[in-house]
Amino acid sequence: MKAVVYHGPGKKSWEQVPDPTIEQETDVIVRVTTTTICGTDLHILKGDVPETPEGTILGHEAVGVIEEVGPGVRNFRKGDRVLIPAITACGQCDACRQGMYSHCVRGGWILGHTIHGVQAQYARIPFADTSLHKVPEGLKDEDVLFLTDILPTAYECGVLSGQIQPGDTVAVVGVGPVGLAAVMLSRLYSPSVIVAIDLDPRRLERARRLGADVTVQAGQEDPVEVVQKLTGGRGVDVAIEAVGIPATFELCTDLVAPGGRIANVGVHGKPVTLRLEKLWARNIRITTRLVDTTTVDRLLKLIAAGKVDPTPLASHTFKMDEFMQAYEVFSQAAAHDAVKVVVKQ
Amino acid sequence: MKAVVYHGPGKKSWEQVPDPTIEQETDVIVRVTTTTICGTDLHILKGDVPETPEGTILGHEAVGVIEEVGPGVRNFRKGDRVLIPAITACGQCDACRQGMYSHCVRGGWILGHTIHGVQAQYARIPFADTSLHKVPEGLKDEDVLFLTDILPTAYECGVLSGQIQPGDTVAVVGVGPVGLAAVMLSRLYSPSVIVAIDLDPRRLERARRLGADVTVQAGQEDPVEVVQKLTGGRGVDVAIEAVGIPATFELCTDLVAPGGRIANVGVHGKPVTLRLEKLWARNIRITTRLVDTTTVDRLLKLIAAGKVDPTPLASHTFKMDEFMQAYEVFSQAAAHDAVKVVVKQ
Amino acid sequence: MKAVVYHGPGKKSWEQVPDPTIEQETDVIVRVTTTTICGTDLHILKGDVPETPEGTILGHEAVGVIEEVGPGVRNFRKGDRVLIPAITACGQCDACRQGMYSHCVRGGWILGHTIHGVQAQYARIPFADTSLHKVPEGLKDEDVLFLTDILPTAYECGVLSGQIQPGDTVAVVGVGPVGLAAVMLSRLYSPSVIVAIDLDPRRLERARRLGADVTVQAGQEDPVEVVQKLTGGRGVDVAIEAVGIPATFELCTDLVAPGGRIANVGVHGKPVTLRLEKLWARNIRITTRLVDTTTVDRLLKLIAAGKVDPTPLASHTFKMDEFMQAYEVFSQAAAHDAVKVVVKQ
Amino acid sequence: MKAVVYHGPGKKSWEQVPDPTIEQETDVIVRVTTTTICGTDLHILKGDVPETPEGTILGHEAVGVIEEVGPGVRNFRKGDRVLIPAITACGQCDACRQGMYSHCVRGGWILGHTIHGVQAQYARIPFADTSLHKVPEGLKDEDVLFLTDILPTAYECGVLSGQIQPGDTVAVVGVGPVGLAAVMLSRLYSPSVIVAIDLDPRRLERARRLGADVTVQAGQEDPVEVVQKLTGGRGVDVAIEAVGIPATFELCTDLVAPGGRIANVGVHGKPVTLRLEKLWARNIRITTRLVDTTTVDRLLKLIAAGKVDPTPLASHTFKMDEFMQAYEVFSQAAAHDAVKVVVKQ
Repeated sequence: MKAVVYHGPGKKSWEQVPDPTIEQETDVIVRVTTTTICGTDLHILKGDVPETPEGTILGHEAVGVIEEVGPGVRNFRKGDRVLIPAITACGQCDACRQGMYSHCVRGGWILGHTIHGVQAQYARIPFADTSLHKVPEGLKDEDVLFLTDILPTAYECGVLSGQIQPGDTVAVVGVGPVGLAAVMLSRLYSPSVIVAIDLDPRRLERARRLGADVTVQAGQEDPVEVVQKLTGGRGVDVAIEAVGIPATFELCTDLVAPGGRIANVGVHGKPVTLRLEKLWARNIRITTRLVDTTTVDRLLKLIAAGKVDPTPLASHTFKMDEFMQAYEVFSQAAAHDAVKVVVKQ
Repeated sequence: MKAVVYHGPGKKSWEQVPDPTIEQETDVIVRVTTTTICGTDLHILKGDVPETPEGTILGHEAVGVIEEVGPGVRNFRKGDRVLIPAITACGQCDACRQGMYSHCVRGGWILGHTIHGVQAQYARIPFADTSLHKVPEGLKDEDVLFLTDILPTAYECGVLSGQIQPGDTVAVVGVGPVGLAAVMLSRLYSPSVIVAIDLDPRRLERARRLGADVTVQAGQEDPVEVVQKLTGGRGVDVAIEAVGIPATFELCTDLVAPGGRIANVGVHGKPVTLRLEKLWARNIRITTRLVDTTTVDRLLKLIAAGKVDPTPLASHTFKMDEFMQAYEVFSQAAAHDAVKVVVKQ
Repeated sequence: MKAVVYHGPGKKSWEQVPDPTIEQETDVIVRVTTTTICGTDLHILKGDVPETPEGTILGHEAVGVIEEVGPGVRNFRKGDRVLIPAITACGQCDACRQGMYSHCVRGGWILGHTIHGVQAQYARIPFADTSLHKVPEGLKDEDVLFLTDILPTAYECGVLSGQIQPGDTVAVVGVGPVGLAAVMLSRLYSPSVIVAIDLDPRRLERARRLGADVTVQAGQEDPVEVVQKLTGGRGVDVAIEAVGIPATFELCTDLVAPGGRIANVGVHGKPVTLRLEKLWARNIRITTRLVDTTTVDRLLKLIAAGKVDPTPLASHTFKMDEFMQAYEVFSQAAAHDAVKVVVKQ
Repeated sequence: MKAVVYHGPGKKSWEQVPDPTIEQETDVIVRVTTTTICGTDLHILKGDVPETPEGTILGHEAVGVIEEVGPGVRNFRKGDRVLIPAITACGQCDACRQGMYSHCVRGGWILGHTIHGVQAQYARIPFADTSLHKVPEGLKDEDVLFLTDILPTAYECGVLSGQIQPGDTVAVVGVGPVGLAAVMLSRLYSPSVIVAIDLDPRRLERARRLGADVTVQAGQEDPVEVVQKLTGGRGVDVAIEAVGIPATFELCTDLVAPGGRIANVGVHGKPVTLRLEKLWARNIRITTRLVDTTTVDRLLKLIAAGKVDPTPLASHTFKMDEFMQAYEVFSQAAAHDAVKVVVKQ
């Protein structure tokens, strides 16, 4: 089969590799029908993720059809259309029993990270029974593709951790793919105002289409000033950080009202400064979380019921043979006005 | 009457001042029978709290007897024995309606801060109906004195924000008066282990008597190593910061397990470094809070029922005429092995 | 002034009465600009509410303008446009401090019940500071009128007690005014399906327009069968009872899934049978609640932001001089296809 | 091997049966070292549980040593000492993923109910990885035996569902084995008063030793009157029903304060009358739950830490050869002053 293989910093190719096979009795083999690229894949390619060995097939987000099931698999059979989330869960360890699949001792984020991933024609998925989800009839691959990572990430790490309540004011700092998903999913709880903040006016325009009530082009306007004005000097109830750099996290601490919450979603590479000399008395809460994908079923129900439509998050579609071109577009997102790319067999 | 008056950085005296009078119809005048000194009073005396004008009577923790009630007071009458919490609440503003009395627009921490306080023979207390609590019969002043500040501070900012559950492991970093109260009140939720961490072995000894299962003398032992060993490498479920300096806050982030909570109680004067490059994926929660004293009734019930006994937190007792000596002992706590001092009329 | 006066079972009239005056310093006098009629008013007229003395002015839902303020009123002044909720709160008793205004020892539901109400040209409102809400500029009386009772009733007793989560299935049993409001406000949490159940097809049609996804005409169809089919045999996550008779409550216990919640909103006059022999093992939760109107601010923000529009709940509008006709229409709701009537000065 | 076999209503014997064998790859065979008898076993023997076939080995609470593991078992090996909870969980179905193991589609309460149980020298346990718990070193069988059923039942269905908070008043209605466990475990949350109510003065005496502050001998005293007096007319914050008959459930509704909670633990065979005409306005919550045993790990930590000691719940000890005598004593509990019996190999 063919797959996207990582060959060390800066190097990847769409090349011929051996087909995957059942290794554990709880494995399945999936024929990948649709996949996508994540910012994390670009991090690996930059050499920022040293635990990923050269020769690894990349990718941790896919939809496909089961081709073969291990003898210990109970819930799936050949021919089932399935969603493959970024997080693999054994379902038995302490972390899994607490619903913290991201910290599963046998799984967690392993696909395209420490074992072969899903940017390939076929993929081996461990712990199928507790990791995969059936795709309901009537839904296309594109309808559910982003349930593999960015939707549960935005929902769990941003919306749920931020405990958005009806009537709240919400700021989403950074409206790349995950930030856009946070805007879209914040609406599930009917805040009175969603403020989207970004440097890129085209992303802000998308945010507006997906539900942002107010947009702030950082660099041109002062987000703190806009928010203070909008909230009568209080600040927002919930600030969602969806970038992953010190400046945006620190902005969140300036935006939040007394009694408010800061939900960190961004992947950070550096420490930040936390101004406790100001914040100690402001009754705030800061949360961090790696996506657990425990809410995929709930989000799937909303998509099936037509209450959430994630398809506008896809900006470009490619065939698998064009995978290198898909990487080019996604890694130069601003130049191409790209959000998420869809790659189909 | 006589009172402790602040005369600018480094200067205070127990001196003759005019008696307080009813200014607003919701005021009462209380004859103070017992009061105490807080670390915050020392901060004011150092000049760290510029909003406190020279000439202010210090103190925000007292028990007394009502001498006079304003015409708008509904719930109290002359002769009632009352508890005066550090936080004054109008009961009507948005913050008060949300139970965030600390951020009351007309009150909050004002006693001994922006208006005259309670280290005096008499004190005027605004918004009596929504700020004071009757002392149940059968309880002495000393039984309830610490309900005015350190018990609700430890309980609300530490124990409740930390959401301690039965069986949890808890670390209390810093066992001064508030840290000791946090140890004592953590036990209300039956954690399996409470670890107290401090530099001073005598404070650790007190922590042990109040319920700490394990004590770590920082400087002599490495708290992270002790905690890792104790928890099988996981870390604690809840870390309570009760010092207020960067080193202790940062220690908390090293102590906490994935999925754990850091409850900041300490008053900070400087920013801290938050290592988000490590913490972003660890599913933790950090909270800050200024005490609201909304749990005084609950704690009072526990004291009345004999389930909590805060009297061991008092290390020294003085008469009001010895107030300067009480300050001397409290400000040199280590030299005197002092925790809280009690000052009685 | 003129007012609707209760003269014993079956008797009422729109008649001349003395103007109200300030009695307590925390009172205000409001000139009523818009009011409405509640099912509870009909109960009083039937003689079901013996604690209401003959001679009482009816009504507990109104919008108006403050004419006069008592000397102890701090937050309002003459000329303010205000919302008068059904529940009066002293803000100081234990119940009020816990946010359970419905059980306020000095207030609760008193207007048009144990003291004169608001179906009048003027009304005295006690505890104005902790009971009234300013109407934001730009909103008409009709925009906020139902915030006085049916919206917070549906929200607090139905939606919040039912803890609706995104993706849930919700059944609303009975879509009179409160049930319709429950349909509308359930949507704030994005359930995947809302099922409205009623005998009256016109009410079901309204429910559909306000957000019900499925309607069941009881009597013609079996609601249990419809729900079982819709949920793959599980039942609904949340059942909201909005009628107040044994049959509809018992229907809720048949509709709810294991792990689900039954939120009682209806006012009951008789005991019901609870089939614990079946329910003891089904992990369900049943709640009852009298509206506290603690969520009026939140709902007001949503209306001001254009996220909730309650005006479709008004089916008829009258002048105050036509008050008897308004009663006629409201009490014969089916004949007139009436939901809520609006009565304006 | 020998086992207690059910032979239809009223008939059981300790008799020779075939040894169990591995049937599914996720099974283990356990040599039972200690077991006990549950009230439910008596129900089966009365013929109240028609789904239990004649010939079934009874029992669903045991501690033992693993003798053999199926090829799909990952977390246990031969020689491990394990706790066998009453509830078996596949860990994969929707109910299990939500932590509602009691409603597991492949498991739930099956041991000694629909498949052979553990009142035997050996037992086959399905879904070992997600059902069993290792017994920590240093703990005896008796220390953990009641973790198999009555402790998590009392904790999950009573204490957790009742959401006991520090300072609360709690009534436990019925202090048989589960009620006594509820008294003991309520203390984990430091209520200010626990009231135990029962007909049997010896059980009340045990309740007092396990932490009840007040005991009421129903029949001699009126529990409602005692509780009203004790709570200043309010009622209790939490009422735990641990009997399972209409009278005791209805007593709970008379005991509970406005804003309070009723946690049903008892197994009911008949409907009860719920006086909604009184309760609709009292802001109460009623919960039902079948034990999920999801809190066994937490309770195990508390026992290992010495914070909970369930051994006083054992009143009698027998050898397995005396099993019929153990049944005699347990089924005539009042005559023998029996609580739980321990049966050892």
